[in-house]
Amino acid sequence: MTRDLTITEVRLTPILVADPPLLNTQGVHQPYTPRLIVEVVTADGITGLGETYGDTKYLELARPLAGRLTGRSVMDVNGLFGIDLAVDASRVEGQADAGGLRGVQSADKLRLSVLSAFEVACLDAQGRALGLPVHALLGGRVRDAVEYSAYLFYKWAAHPAGVPAEPDEWGPALDPAGVVAQARRLRELHGFGSFKLKGGVLPPEEETAAVRALAEAFPGRPLRLDPNGAWSVATSLKVAAELGDVLEYLEDPTLGTPGMAAVAAGTDVPLATNMCVTTFGEIREAFERHAVQVVLSDHHYWGGLRNTQHLAAICAAFGVGVSMHSNTHLGISLAAMTQVASTVPGLHHACDSHYPWQSEDVLTERLVLEGGRIAVGDAPGLGVELDRDELARLHRRWAADDGGYRDRDDAAAMRVAEPHWRPPVMPRW
Amino acid sequence: MTRDLTITEVRLTPILVADPPLLNTQGVHQPYTPRLIVEVVTADGITGLGETYGDTKYLELARPLAGRLTGRSVMDVNGLFGIDLAVDASRVEGQADAGGLRGVQSADKLRLSVLSAFEVACLDAQGRALGLPVHALLGGRVRDAVEYSAYLFYKWAAHPAGVPAEPDEWGPALDPAGVVAQARRLRELHGFGSFKLKGGVLPPEEETAAVRALAEAFPGRPLRLDPNGAWSVATSLKVAAELGDVLEYLEDPTLGTPGMAAVAAGTDVPLATNMCVTTFGEIREAFERHAVQVVLSDHHYWGGLRNTQHLAAICAAFGVGVSMHSNTHLGISLAAMTQVASTVPGLHHACDSHYPWQSEDVLTERLVLEGGRIAVGDAPGLGVELDRDELARLHRRWAADDGGYRDRDDAAAMRVAEPHWRPPVMPRW
Ligand SMILES: [Mg+2]
Ligand SMILES: [Mg+2]
Repeated sequence: MTRDLTITEVRLTPILVADPPLLNTQGVHQPYTPRLIVEVVTADGITGLGETYGDTKYLELARPLAGRLTGRSVMDVNGLFGIDLAVDASRVEGQADAGGLRGVQSADKLRLSVLSAFEVACLDAQGRALGLPVHALLGGRVRDAVEYSAYLFYKWAAHPAGVPAEPDEWGPALDPAGVVAQARRLRELHGFGSFKLKGGVLPPEEETAAVRALAEAFPGRPLRLDPNGAWSVATSLKVAAELGDVLEYLEDPTLGTPGMAAVAAGTDVPLATNMCVTTFGEIREAFERHAVQVVLSDHHYWGGLRNTQHLAAICAAFGVGVSMHSNTHLGISLAAMTQVASTVPGLHHACDSHYPWQSEDVLTERLVLEGGRIAVGDAPGLGVELDRDELARLHRRWAADDGGYRDRDDAAAMRVAEPHWRPPVMPRW
Repeated sequence: MTRDLTITEVRLTPILVADPPLLNTQGVHQPYTPRLIVEVVTADGITGLGETYGDTKYLELARPLAGRLTGRSVMDVNGLFGIDLAVDASRVEGQADAGGLRGVQSADKLRLSVLSAFEVACLDAQGRALGLPVHALLGGRVRDAVEYSAYLFYKWAAHPAGVPAEPDEWGPALDPAGVVAQARRLRELHGFGSFKLKGGVLPPEEETAAVRALAEAFPGRPLRLDPNGAWSVATSLKVAAELGDVLEYLEDPTLGTPGMAAVAAGTDVPLATNMCVTTFGEIREAFERHAVQVVLSDHHYWGGLRNTQHLAAICAAFGVGVSMHSNTHLGISLAAMTQVASTVPGLHHACDSHYPWQSEDVLTERLVLEGGRIAVGDAPGLGVELDRDELARLHRRWAADDGGYRDRDDAAAMRVAEPHWRPPVMPRW
């Protein structure tokens, strides 16, 4: 064949995308969140797309990596992980990533989170060059649609007055009625069949009441509550006992493997995590201590789609469930999640996605969530197309940023409304 | 693209291949061993090759499976494992596979051992259709050659008198001098840099002496001894203590995870296995008990090349080493092993291969073992071509078989020479 799969150019485009005022235990989403869009171009002019976190520390690693890709083949994705990519220790040492929402930061996780965008871009380019969907390059899909869960948030009606932001049509959700209304709207729009509430925002009694209200509004539907580790073991056990009859799982009720193991030992409610097991190095202890029953993979953390498949195989071998975590992301990452999720045999829980909260995207056509599912097609690569005008617009926003949004900081965003806000000492309750 | 990757035909060709009188704890190799050659043909006339065990129980599963593949895409390898393939329980229940040499038999292992040949054939067809080597379909190679170990056997000079067999130019090896001579010849022919002795044949003192002789003949070279579980825990510990200074690892000294764990707890010599961890279901207990330090994958048992990658990822996450096991096999399986081995990052031990003992093959050109290595090229698919005349000849041998060779039975072969031979009760020593 005359096809040339050599990488001749890599383009990195940091952008800022609109984000509603979604609350979590660390603070609130900023009006704009940084993402990085990666384009890998082959000698034949094929372009593959990838997406990852866009904070400065990711950009600092992505730039030298991009410079080392030209001349390599897009087929060589395993080799990406062998590229010596020095991580500045001061960027990670002792830091909790995104204020703790992504678990403990580590050089390995930072490196993999950057590499993942390049792995996905290479797979997209492979697929486009070969005329094959990414799932076929991953061994083929075992389902023709991937189920997602409605991701419910406590939220304000709007970002603080005087702060420039995009329009928000969702309204507030600060009590059980507001949460149920939000759930109804998400279900109406996208047909979701299960619901996850981001907790750790209000005292546990109030969040328990919200979940109870969801259970009444949507009887029999799987429900999840995720306080991002804001609770003590005792509080976690109390909530588990109170909501055990309606919870599909409790997500990261408390921080760290020992705490999770203590909670797991005291309840039959399965525990899920995207915080205490976020790298391959954290698996052994957590599994040996039976600390988690469901690992929520994030292909960014774990280093891409092949690593996500490996993680799923590890979970299967240890009788641990697997599903997928989501942070603020756009359609490229949603397409990547969907492709790999379609290939994982034991995916028994609907995946998370922030996507319905993202009013902006860099695609010519948004992905369609219908009946709570995204169909897995056979279009080449990821099956999505870049909207270059929109990419340029969101990049101009990033370039012009003087609001301090180039690094996501939910606590800083919270301080705009509550000047004395500090990230809470954990456990918060 | 106009390419059509639909499977239109599947050809199964059982064959008998010549095998020298290699000894193991169960008996001796028969003069002829059954193998199954799988060909998967696409609508475009591309043929992919696979190979697996050829014993009757494998053929019985392979035939209905083959019938269900037409109309599927060769890209859909994950889907192979979802095909409902009923295993006749009487074929596996309580049976030790190949007299125990392959660990405990299970329906899952039998099913995967059959599926693996189809997975490999599909990957080979993919590669040929797309103009890509199999390793590229597995994410790309991380090394350009795969190292193999010399596989030493106690052996007779010839199969028993009066038993029809192919010529054997290797001569006997029944004592330390014979083993060293064999090792020298294998090293001369193929440049091997490490040596494995199949043990469990002679009393442990004699095998220990043979390993000691190897250590003197090849100072500093990694050595291994594999008695296929023939020893008690106490004997295993005694041998480990005596050979600890020269062994790279001790392979399956005793049977079962509890026994291996007991040995591991009493020695610093790493333990390797292709007997107590042979399926995903056996991993958890073995790893939690620290029973094994190196898992020897066999892509046949484990269900193909993608599963071998998953196994390697599991081992990496648990700090367990990985390498590859071999049974009597031909060049198709050796090419498949080599392709996948080239993609596994943490492969720190040379792989095993019986290939030098196989005077016959179904390839137009044999694979070349030089400097103890097989080069990993970029030829499409597995990079090997079928010799149809030879395939037909070996199939005629299978069709004409009246020597009882259609099912490998090392104990039966031993009874030809020693009529009262029974597979030993374990532990033998
Ligand atoms: Mg979470
Ligand atoms: Mg062995």
